[in-house]
Amino acid sequence: MPFDLGSISNFKPTLESIPPPNVSYQQQELAGIPVNIHPLNPFAFILRAALVYPEKVALAHPDVKYPAFYTYSVWAQRIQNLAYALIQAGIQPGDRVAVIAPNSPLIADAHFGVLAARAILTAINTRLTPSEVAYILQHSGSKIILVDREYAHLVQGSQIPVIISHDSGRPEDPYELFLSNGRKFSAEKGWAGLEVEPDENAGAILCYTSGTTGRPKGVLTTLRGSYLAAIANAVEGQINRDSTYLWIVPMFHAAGWTYPWASVFACATQLTIRSVDYALIWKHFLHSGVTHYCGAPTVQIGIVNSPAAGPLSNPVSAIVAGAAPTAHLISQLEQKGITPVHVYGLTYVETYGPFTRCYDQPFWKSLPLEQRAKLMARQGQIFATAQNVRVVYPPKNENDQELVDVPKDGQTIGEIITRGNIVMKEYFRDPETTRKAFRGGYFSSGDLAVMHPDGVLQIMDRSKDIIISGGENASSLAIEQELASHPHVLEVTVVARPHVKWGERPMAFVILRQEHASQWTGKHREFGEELKRHGRKRLPGFACPEWIEVVEELPKTSTGKILKTELRKRVAKL
Amino acid sequence: MPFDLGSISNFKPTLESIPPPNVSYQQQELAGIPVNIHPLNPFAFILRAALVYPEKVALAHPDVKYPAFYTYSVWAQRIQNLAYALIQAGIQPGDRVAVIAPNSPLIADAHFGVLAARAILTAINTRLTPSEVAYILQHSGSKIILVDREYAHLVQGSQIPVIISHDSGRPEDPYELFLSNGRKFSAEKGWAGLEVEPDENAGAILCYTSGTTGRPKGVLTTLRGSYLAAIANAVEGQINRDSTYLWIVPMFHAAGWTYPWASVFACATQLTIRSVDYALIWKHFLHSGVTHYCGAPTVQIGIVNSPAAGPLSNPVSAIVAGAAPTAHLISQLEQKGITPVHVYGLTYVETYGPFTRCYDQPFWKSLPLEQRAKLMARQGQIFATAQNVRVVYPPKNENDQELVDVPKDGQTIGEIITRGNIVMKEYFRDPETTRKAFRGGYFSSGDLAVMHPDGVLQIMDRSKDIIISGGENASSLAIEQELASHPHVLEVTVVARPHVKWGERPMAFVILRQEHASQWTGKHREFGEELKRHGRKRLPGFACPEWIEVVEELPKTSTGKILKTELRKRVAKL
Repeated sequence: MPFDLGSISNFKPTLESIPPPNVSYQQQELAGIPVNIHPLNPFAFILRAALVYPEKVALAHPDVKYPAFYTYSVWAQRIQNLAYALIQAGIQPGDRVAVIAPNSPLIADAHFGVLAARAILTAINTRLTPSEVAYILQHSGSKIILVDREYAHLVQGSQIPVIISHDSGRPEDPYELFLSNGRKFSAEKGWAGLEVEPDENAGAILCYTSGTTGRPKGVLTTLRGSYLAAIANAVEGQINRDSTYLWIVPMFHAAGWTYPWASVFACATQLTIRSVDYALIWKHFLHSGVTHYCGAPTVQIGIVNSPAAGPLSNPVSAIVAGAAPTAHLISQLEQKGITPVHVYGLTYVETYGPFTRCYDQPFWKSLPLEQRAKLMARQGQIFATAQNVRVVYPPKNENDQELVDVPKDGQTIGEIITRGNIVMKEYFRDPETTRKAFRGGYFSSGDLAVMHPDGVLQIMDRSKDIIISGGENASSLAIEQELASHPHVLEVTVVARPHVKWGERPMAFVILRQEHASQWTGKHREFGEELKRHGRKRLPGFACPEWIEVVEELPKTSTGKILKTELRKRVAKL
Repeated sequence: MPFDLGSISNFKPTLESIPPPNVSYQQQELAGIPVNIHPLNPFAFILRAALVYPEKVALAHPDVKYPAFYTYSVWAQRIQNLAYALIQAGIQPGDRVAVIAPNSPLIADAHFGVLAARAILTAINTRLTPSEVAYILQHSGSKIILVDREYAHLVQGSQIPVIISHDSGRPEDPYELFLSNGRKFSAEKGWAGLEVEPDENAGAILCYTSGTTGRPKGVLTTLRGSYLAAIANAVEGQINRDSTYLWIVPMFHAAGWTYPWASVFACATQLTIRSVDYALIWKHFLHSGVTHYCGAPTVQIGIVNSPAAGPLSNPVSAIVAGAAPTAHLISQLEQKGITPVHVYGLTYVETYGPFTRCYDQPFWKSLPLEQRAKLMARQGQIFATAQNVRVVYPPKNENDQELVDVPKDGQTIGEIITRGNIVMKEYFRDPETTRKAFRGGYFSSGDLAVMHPDGVLQIMDRSKDIIISGGENASSLAIEQELASHPHVLEVTVVARPHVKWGERPMAFVILRQEHASQWTGKHREFGEELKRHGRKRLPGFACPEWIEVVEELPKTSTGKILKTELRKRVAKL
């Protein structure tokens, strides 16, 4: 047992979390489905893990006032309780259940319990503003909200039922009461009282974008896709029953890149910490048998530079995505005994988290670091259960459905497109955007890349206007919209500027309205502060501009489009 | 490179096996399939492996006059050539392609090339008689036969086209000519000229039983099932890109337990040897980096007792199925550095090879060998992609569709049933037998077992009349039929008798016809020899009775059914 035994033995799950003595992991049979078909569903992984490793620690949440440790059999019972509690609360197949929580048992439970109730999980970014949350709740049509106490203010005054978790695992916790009532409601029918979802293409996860084109879009995935993507992630990460996965990437981000399911598919142990705390991370690296974690380079930089870092006795795999790891970072990770695995996926859940991997070739081992890092910085090739990924020329016009691959020359930039089982179902309630995203029978990623002669793709530009700030994706367009609402602003544009701590932060270039320009003459710095205040009221922290520059004009194309590339060059020199 | 480099560098694949310089691994697009669906098909694994690891040795066949070594890119090209050659020969989607070959590139190619042509692979047991082969060819409606020269006599005079392989990989080999013509026929359209099979529930493999109830039955599996079962086998075996899988189980047996695909899914290397030769096996264990192999206990016994055995420097996993490994065998394997993994599946391809595994629990490590072996002898619990397995009371009558689980007491014997994605589609052209096998919406295995309190199943009796002789399944009923055709035999029954070398061998009990009895008085031994000669003409070697006893009467039930259980008790005392 890798964790502090004192805490584990001190912990007692609620009475209703204990499965009955003769628990059966068999669900209600489906009528009319052939003997040789079972609809794919990642929820099924928990039934098998509980059957095979009932006594194994499935979920550990050690670093809170009331630590909790759930074995697979107990966790499965809690998931069953959650499913019944949701059904008791009126949740019907296909309904959306919202969850707002940091990495903790609540959101881990939800990844299984919501699916067990045949509902769709809408996991909401905890860093959004109340109005953004309200929009998502309204657009998703969520019927109930499960929220961690820390984020309860985000849904204050909600018109739909709210279940608050104090993250305590204690019987008096409202979330625990909810689960316990679910157990009572089940009347001990157990798994046999829950229906299998007959349609493997039914919705699984509905995650919202940060709203790159204004309003957030809801990305809807399927059960089949989630099942196959989770298996791919377990296989690519080589996660198995001896693995311990440490949660650093938020589970609300693209369903935690499918790792809530991948870990259970592999019968591994999951360890949740509520926030990215490098001292805690190293405590677990050194003392809890952690073997795997995921994180963007920003987080990886924080990890390797932490004063808590120490020599690792067991190998740890770092799944890196969000941006390419630099040679310096690769070297730092390897020096610490951490093996980086570079993967790529869409920012939201359009590709269920990662779907390509930079597969290292045997001969790379003998290359000097700089050269190896150059190869490792590439986004790679498709996962085992993905179909294919191409880099094609952008459309000539709005109706252009023809997909022409760019030459495999490592130079010609095109757009990354993909199709197959690891592609989302649709943008929820937005057929027009879905249609546009599915040009030519492929999903258009919006990411620009080249294809190397060895069939490996490399991103040249993130979707052009995204700013990766502290691991969060800030849309420059969305920031511009908010800043432009200041009455003195005539025109504003925002680009990413490198930042030591956050990786990138937004920098805004502003042209003042003529009528207000004189007012700020010689006081551009003061105006910047004023505009920052304006932004902070409207934007999540990570999207607030760190720097603001007042300018006379902005570089533009002949058709009047702002040349962000020019601004980025300017910013690079700052 | 784990193999003898001399052989590899001496080997040159045929010109037509070399892919074109700008090979694309993209198949013809499917119209009308949603962007987020790609029909599951294990054939797809080769396209990805060739893309990601083009230069890696995919298939090595070192121990023949003309050794062959194919990298993933070359092997993929050969598979493409085979698909085109089959299409050129008139093979249409859904047609059956017969293959008769020992473990060698031919049958490995067929597991991919036949599917790439959207056809169904009928792999035929090389140990059958010509008339048995003829029956299978006729019943399957095979349109073409790919046969290894050693077994060409089995299809002599065939009415359908026969392609003979000399297993040489040389341009003048008829099989190579067939492949090369396929390449020419493709007109370099490459993968884009081959259609994706749009129906993932289309047939993949058609394997024939040994004919337990007289005539062999054709077991038809699907592409979806093959895909998911192969992934499960790769995951359960922990096969990955660093693995080398040695072929000992014949690939014609239940599609090699899905390992032709599982190995490619994992991007591993496969090593084929034409027969079970323990010296060769140890040569590869010691010098070729073998990490995995599969085999029944009979084979495992041969391996551990081989004079060629030596200390292993790298860990090797032995996937054991067909019967439970004994404590003695487990200890012998472990002493040699081989880790046994005990799995269970149906004899033919009804469950795509193994679908349960005896999952060892951490605390087993501290148990004494005898106790651990007792736990390890159990057949276990379902694979990751299987749905569920139950042990139920046998039907009360022919129309009884009710499935009632036996208590989890480790004592009550019932029948193993299963359903889900790792279950065959049907018995080919035999809806009545299919209907009977799918009682109550589950597949009835015919294997009798108990369910232990920890949810682990254990087989108590193999389907009652099967004799496992040298790893082959001999049907006592089929043997009885052939022996009964001797004019002097009145009645005959056959049961398994333990055999030091073969595990089991058939023993026949015969009642002579009255008119002939006097002729053999005092010469029962001579009659035995006569009847063995009779059998050898009609039966494969493994099914020929090793012992024959002439008796006056046979033990029978009140309804006249022979009590084989009584005979088995008698045999056990011999």
